[in-house]
Amino acid sequence: MEKCDFEKVFFDFLERENALRTALTLFDWDNETLAPEAAGERTAKAYGVLSAAYRELFAQDGLEEIFAKVKDGRDVSSLERALARRAERERKKLLAIPKEEYRRFSELTAGSVQKWSLAKKQNDFASFAPVLEEILDMQKRFASYRAEAGRTPYDVFLSDYEEGFTQEKLDSFFEELKKGILPLVAEVVRRNKERSVSCDFLFQNYDVEKQRHWNKWLAAYLGFQFSRGVFSESEHPFTTSLHRDDVRITTHYYQNNLESAIFSTIHETGHGIFEQGNAEELTGTLLGGGTCGVHESQSRFYENMLGRSKAFWEPIYGRLQRTFSEQMGRISLDAFIRAINRSEPGPVRTEADELTYCLHIIVRYELEKGLMDGELSVRDLEGEWNRLYGEYLGVTPKTAGEGVLQDIHWAMGEFGYFPSYALGNAMAAQLYAHMDREMNVEELLRKGDLDRISGYLRERVHRFGASKGMEELLLEITGEGLNAEYYIEYLRKKHK
Amino acid sequence: MEKCDFEKVFFDFLERENALRTALTLFDWDNETLAPEAAGERTAKAYGVLSAAYRELFAQDGLEEIFAKVKDGRDVSSLERALARRAERERKKLLAIPKEEYRRFSELTAGSVQKWSLAKKQNDFASFAPVLEEILDMQKRFASYRAEAGRTPYDVFLSDYEEGFTQEKLDSFFEELKKGILPLVAEVVRRNKERSVSCDFLFQNYDVEKQRHWNKWLAAYLGFQFSRGVFSESEHPFTTSLHRDDVRITTHYYQNNLESAIFSTIHETGHGIFEQGNAEELTGTLLGGGTCGVHESQSRFYENMLGRSKAFWEPIYGRLQRTFSEQMGRISLDAFIRAINRSEPGPVRTEADELTYCLHIIVRYELEKGLMDGELSVRDLEGEWNRLYGEYLGVTPKTAGEGVLQDIHWAMGEFGYFPSYALGNAMAAQLYAHMDREMNVEELLRKGDLDRISGYLRERVHRFGASKGMEELLLEITGEGLNAEYYIEYLRKKHK
Repeated sequence: MEKCDFEKVFFDFLERENALRTALTLFDWDNETLAPEAAGERTAKAYGVLSAAYRELFAQDGLEEIFAKVKDGRDVSSLERALARRAERERKKLLAIPKEEYRRFSELTAGSVQKWSLAKKQNDFASFAPVLEEILDMQKRFASYRAEAGRTPYDVFLSDYEEGFTQEKLDSFFEELKKGILPLVAEVVRRNKERSVSCDFLFQNYDVEKQRHWNKWLAAYLGFQFSRGVFSESEHPFTTSLHRDDVRITTHYYQNNLESAIFSTIHETGHGIFEQGNAEELTGTLLGGGTCGVHESQSRFYENMLGRSKAFWEPIYGRLQRTFSEQMGRISLDAFIRAINRSEPGPVRTEADELTYCLHIIVRYELEKGLMDGELSVRDLEGEWNRLYGEYLGVTPKTAGEGVLQDIHWAMGEFGYFPSYALGNAMAAQLYAHMDREMNVEELLRKGDLDRISGYLRERVHRFGASKGMEELLLEITGEGLNAEYYIEYLRKKHK
Repeated sequence: MEKCDFEKVFFDFLERENALRTALTLFDWDNETLAPEAAGERTAKAYGVLSAAYRELFAQDGLEEIFAKVKDGRDVSSLERALARRAERERKKLLAIPKEEYRRFSELTAGSVQKWSLAKKQNDFASFAPVLEEILDMQKRFASYRAEAGRTPYDVFLSDYEEGFTQEKLDSFFEELKKGILPLVAEVVRRNKERSVSCDFLFQNYDVEKQRHWNKWLAAYLGFQFSRGVFSESEHPFTTSLHRDDVRITTHYYQNNLESAIFSTIHETGHGIFEQGNAEELTGTLLGGGTCGVHESQSRFYENMLGRSKAFWEPIYGRLQRTFSEQMGRISLDAFIRAINRSEPGPVRTEADELTYCLHIIVRYELEKGLMDGELSVRDLEGEWNRLYGEYLGVTPKTAGEGVLQDIHWAMGEFGYFPSYALGNAMAAQLYAHMDREMNVEELLRKGDLDRISGYLRERVHRFGASKGMEELLLEITGEGLNAEYYIEYLRKKHK
């Protein structure tokens, strides 16, 4: 009977874990999309109690033994074993930090986002620096609690977002990227001086209601299933899901910018299709969703590989022109494609084109390394930020708001997330190259046959949720691990 | 130190109770307004686990003693004592039903709503009858678990919705209402035969986007604070709240009906203003919100006492005409007021005017009594329903969908809720009569000064949340208990 007992406890744990996590996800969603301004403090209290209950759940007596029994159980399915491994990893991570420190950190980061937001508005890094210093100190302490032989503190965070990825591995990855991208950027800058790409037509007056209809149609065209999802709006576009049958994506509309909402929509739809493609048995569990890097690979795949290609727009460009005939009626498809693929180094990551994007990530990666190993102090951060932007992108932020304070991540205590964006770009290009050997992707796009493309991704990527990481997936699909060369080659071809 | 200990446990309990209840409320809201069709089953699982956790929270060892200590504690605030009393009442109610039966009932009612919905579409009461029978049997059993000397099974449910209200009390209340209303209805029917009230203009083609703007403006005009609330849409309009700084109301727009959304908006805004007016120390606790009858009194107050009066529309009717100039431009204010106050007996409660509305409630009240005490069997329910509609309203439902299957309440296992609607109507009229002695309500409405009216309600009703019931409030405010005569008098004046 022992087996039955431990499995019962395990299933009970999984049910509660799922229920609490789903509730927390729903609060996050609601907070980003709908909750009124004034709700913050009171709702945060309930949220805090549920978060603490989530940690408590992992702290219950005997859970470690239960996980061990499931992992070693003979009549236990491989899925259960994988779930036990994943839960054990989560348990270690949650419990490594003493309860009181965990709570203090939650309080700190709850308040710090507001302080960051204010400092950003006022372009005043000095006022935010002490807060950032405290966050950094706590995170470094937490990393020390989770130290393992041969892991740097930064490694601890990097592998939270994409298991197995280390500073050493990323050093060589980013070195290769830099070498490939910098000459291309220099060439583009030179060319831009001769003749800039026309894109004014994207920034005229575009009725928001019309944009809503168009983008909703676009998400459906790409394959987002509305019967199993929600398409909404928020200040910063994002994707979340309660499970594969309730996947939620948002976009943001600007009256004087057609491009922004379109590419946010395509990007988030990529994330959304991934979540909708999770296997039944994984969704909702700790192995549902996807790892950060793989998730970004899917959004970038849709946004860039597909969404910026001429073949993708061929069957639907007429529809876009008809919808916005006044502004787009006389713009040729080629002019549109040139405009959405223009490149120009700028100071802001979220506005960066796909050629310069990874340079923004490399700046952050180098700064995070310095902060983590103590080579760089928060006091010197702004100066170093500006120096690196000068070196890699040839620009200097005019203000702290478009410089060192532009991203929310550090204010939330997230160090080590940024690299996922670059890893995602590289994986997307690698996948595309492999897919294109099996099927003529451009031809499918020209025919408007998105199903075969998403079918490929669903079978090889989406259904595995977070049960397989980037390296494992790439090895299985392409026969080789992550290789930056595909991405560089893709950029070379486009910006030659 | 003992005092500190039990208070600590009590506060910890209150925090968890609030967090879980808030999460469940958010799931309910999301389910009604946004969640995709396919999400139901998976999300319901998480919801079920959280509901069970809510029950578990009340079942923890020693809680009864903790509540007792708080109630008897010397240095305990009166609020804490009231919370302990309320929590103890909730504990008794939750734990009276064995865990397994509670779960079976939840599963039963989760599925029964769908079955009801299908049966309603197919106008087939017989297919739903066995489900209803099972629900009724379980509810009667639950009532028997909670039996107390001198309480009928129906009393158990009636007092859940409005404490202290019993079958005996309601029998005389409804008897009085019937006597007052039936002659008025007979007179209206006679008059309608001579000349019907023109209202076609309300049912032309009304652009939904324009309706959205108008109704949002209307909610703000009434005093709903958008910075502390959400105004959204759902199939069936409703109000909910996470706490006083996050109150959510919905309405529903029909392209060919201007009236429906307007009066749903006013009704739900009444509920919403109530919740936004809760005192700081009560909101979010078990004493926040309001009892069912009092809640309905506020929505009806806004919808009928204010929203159907000429004085209310005087300052804003021009705005309505300008918004819908094509359809309303040539309709006089008097014609509009006549149209929104027209009365005609019909088979459907939610479409009933304020004169005939309570007759729909009386039908349900009499049927519920019969079902509860065993005089009426589910098998005979449809026939009895139709007979009573003939007797009181002079109409016969053409189908089960517009007859015995029209309401969702019984399918959800809710017996005893319907009377709240009638109680709310009566309380609203009684409050209005009293308020009108202190201030000239019509004059305030004519000046568009809604603040003094809502201020009166906030001070005397809203701030007390659910800490005071209908009878207590009415005694305090008007010096007498619930008295149907005010409502009858109000109807008489209007429909004389």
